Amino acid sequence: MAAAATLARQIARSGVLPLCHGPPAWGRAARQPPGLPLAPCRAFSNNKIMVELDESSGVATMKFKSPPVNSLSLEFLTEFSISLEKLENNRACRGVIITSAVPKIFSSGLDITEMCGKSTEHYAEFWRAVQEMWLRLYSSNMVTVAAVNGSSPAGGCLMALSCDYRIMVENPKFSIGLNEAQLGIVAPFWFKDTFVNVVGHRVAERSLQLGSLHPAPEALKFGLVDELVPEEKLQERTGAVMAQWLALPDHARQLTKSMMRKAVLDRLVAHREEDIQNFISFISKESIQKSLRMYMEMLKKKKG
Amino acid sequence: MAAAATLARQIARSGVLPLCHGPPAWGRAARQPPGLPLAPCRAFSNNKIMVELDESSGVATMKFKSPPVNSLSLEFLTEFSISLEKLENNRACRGVIITSAVPKIFSSGLDITEMCGKSTEHYAEFWRAVQEMWLRLYSSNMVTVAAVNGSSPAGGCLMALSCDYRIMVENPKFSIGLNEAQLGIVAPFWFKDTFVNVVGHRVAERSLQLGSLHPAPEALKFGLVDELVPEEKLQERTGAVMAQWLALPDHARQLTKSMMRKAVLDRLVAHREEDIQNFISFISKESIQKSLRMYMEMLKKKKG
Amino acid sequence: MAAAATLARQIARSGVLPLCHGPPAWGRAARQPPGLPLAPCRAFSNNKIMVELDESSGVATMKFKSPPVNSLSLEFLTEFSISLEKLENNRACRGVIITSAVPKIFSSGLDITEMCGKSTEHYAEFWRAVQEMWLRLYSSNMVTVAAVNGSSPAGGCLMALSCDYRIMVENPKFSIGLNEAQLGIVAPFWFKDTFVNVVGHRVAERSLQLGSLHPAPEALKFGLVDELVPEEKLQERTGAVMAQWLALPDHARQLTKSMMRKAVLDRLVAHREEDIQNFISFISKESIQKSLRMYMEMLKKKKG
Repeated sequence: MAAAATLARQIARSGVLPLCHGPPAWGRAARQPPGLPLAPCRAFSNNKIMVELDESSGVATMKFKSPPVNSLSLEFLTEFSISLEKLENNRACRGVIITSAVPKIFSSGLDITEMCGKSTEHYAEFWRAVQEMWLRLYSSNMVTVAAVNGSSPAGGCLMALSCDYRIMVENPKFSIGLNEAQLGIVAPFWFKDTFVNVVGHRVAERSLQLGSLHPAPEALKFGLVDELVPEEKLQERTGAVMAQWLALPDHARQLTKSMMRKAVLDRLVAHREEDIQNFISFISKESIQKSLRMYMEMLKKKKG
Repeated sequence: MAAAATLARQIARSGVLPLCHGPPAWGRAARQPPGLPLAPCRAFSNNKIMVELDESSGVATMKFKSPPVNSLSLEFLTEFSISLEKLENNRACRGVIITSAVPKIFSSGLDITEMCGKSTEHYAEFWRAVQEMWLRLYSSNMVTVAAVNGSSPAGGCLMALSCDYRIMVENPKFSIGLNEAQLGIVAPFWFKDTFVNVVGHRVAERSLQLGSLHPAPEALKFGLVDELVPEEKLQERTGAVMAQWLALPDHARQLTKSMMRKAVLDRLVAHREEDIQNFISFISKESIQKSLRMYMEMLKKKKG
Repeated sequence: MAAAATLARQIARSGVLPLCHGPPAWGRAARQPPGLPLAPCRAFSNNKIMVELDESSGVATMKFKSPPVNSLSLEFLTEFSISLEKLENNRACRGVIITSAVPKIFSSGLDITEMCGKSTEHYAEFWRAVQEMWLRLYSSNMVTVAAVNGSSPAGGCLMALSCDYRIMVENPKFSIGLNEAQLGIVAPFWFKDTFVNVVGHRVAERSLQLGSLHPAPEALKFGLVDELVPEEKLQERTGAVMAQWLALPDHARQLTKSMMRKAVLDRLVAHREEDIQNFISFISKESIQKSLRMYMEMLKKKKG
């Protein structure tokens, strides 16, 4: 954890992960001069995420391999943002598939150990990394497809919602949703905005208040995912969907995506520091700390 | 009527019904210190609404008993706001069911006699009471469920739309909708905002322009109500739904609800006086008065 | 083309087509004093659109007759706006049906020859005419119904989306959608706003990015059109729908429509000149000009 924190600080200082000011998609698209030679790219893997780029199709796959449940720790989030940034800057890469290498789970969401018994500085650093992940993924110039091959609560659901398209394995035991309210915590406004953009106001209002985890068939019904496939067809179908999206001219697709998502992205960019302060003051409350500790105890007992 | 007006004025002066400035749900939640002894609460009934609180479940039922059609008179609205405020401040009460004690009708909406041939002061007082009802109900910290056991046009529909969940009796003779346009009048912007938040822009645009009253099955299809049940199952099902919502921690649920509804609530709070003036100048037009008189004549003949 | 350009300039100078400042529907409704004698009106036809008014029903039909594909040239758009303005000011006319006199095509959208190899002044004039068409149609005080009797891509789809109701022939060979991205261009924000108001954010985001043309049955599923009918029933059904909408009092219906559409209309009115400049700088790019030329070549070969 300490190593991850140091890494994140180094990145913040070095400017490799610049904050997302200004129009996200427009700006970056404009900075890619056409006709540059393709940068070479090979598979790279850090601790938590395995990244493979198929240079013939221009499609990268980011496989979450952080057992037992791919929880979004500071280290995971930092690695995710760095990997995505590398792909974003690689002209050979036009699309990204995010999926899990851990059976039955896509991602369990934010790592509760990062939010429990830590310093204010740590909370700030962690929350900034959560924001960074979302800002990069939701504004990505690449086509982003989530191949949801397991359950995907809370922050895991947010990652799927931030992609351009969601394919889920049709196993009714796998569920997805922003279930924060179940834990006594509240999804921040930009989780909510992303959710509303996908399922509409009414479904979001009801689902967020109840902290619902929707089994795959229900998630399809509400439009939370775009389609269901048998697990053995997931890879093939994801590739076909990606090819369909990549058939479009990049520039027009990117500008269109930016037009659809800009308002919601701008809102967090404008209130980013405020949002961090809100998170810190909320998470530092003794009542919240207590309920998170109880929740962690419960998880430990379940495993034991 | 005069008595109701006087009552409303007294309330306005005494400050028992403070105007809803500032963030509605947040503020009030924050003002309830945890651990206070539960206030005692018994059933209370005024003229128009019967209120019963089941202290074991923490669920109150508000039964409209203002025959023949539960129309929303100044007296009804004032009583509604006072009763809701009492429950809101009662820590033993966490949820409210609104339903009708009059067969076949939930509520017929705003009482037209309050809008016809009265003084400007009366119109202002009446409209403020309509706003107050909506501001309180839509921002309530309690779980609110509408058990719609009869037709529910116009203002009756608004009350149902303002709850967290709507269950309607599956009788196709019962209909629900914002049918103001049928009477030659226009639903105010906050009726519209509430409607759009439930059914989306397109359904709202079409339904409001046509002044549609949707039979129960159609209302379900459009998402105007969340489910239909046979009349004899209504009470049981309403209780089950309420229990599901009450299973969530209050604080997280309340903050989530506020996040979803704040923009629309704030909009009326910011334009409240302007909205009253708009209502007065619209309703004072001779053409509108004439069509309301004709409508009342028609209703009288129907009865006779 | 030169003649059309001159006509448009004359109109601009004469003030017959005033720019749409201020609240669109409200203002005009208020300027129609009740009780004026009905102005006489006969069928009139210019080059591109045949207009017939049935004075008994108060319903006009605008039939696009600009073969081969009813493309929206400067001349077509100018004629459309003038014809619509005439009907708008004719108190005998309360509803307008737009449809095509050309088999298999409703409208192919913006005329690419207007956007290719022309002067900056021409681009400005053309784009202002596109805006004017939309501002007039989307804010019309009349009931507007699109009888979509053929394919309707891009600008053709926008015209249908701007009506109050859309009936499409149930032929799966006919498709409709904002497919700009397929041509490497981007639908402007007000095309997008109009689309989102009809189908919601998620369907719009996906459909715009993919530049999808939806076959009639899919268009119905997504709510892009309101119903499908066999071709031989189109006229009868359109008349029945129009009669249903005309049964409402005009004034209440108009104010309701304005309330629903005002935000989106105001947005273009506030950014109109900026939007024209954006169009000019986008369309003047050599890369865009090149791809439009290639597209036109392809169309010519198809015909040949």
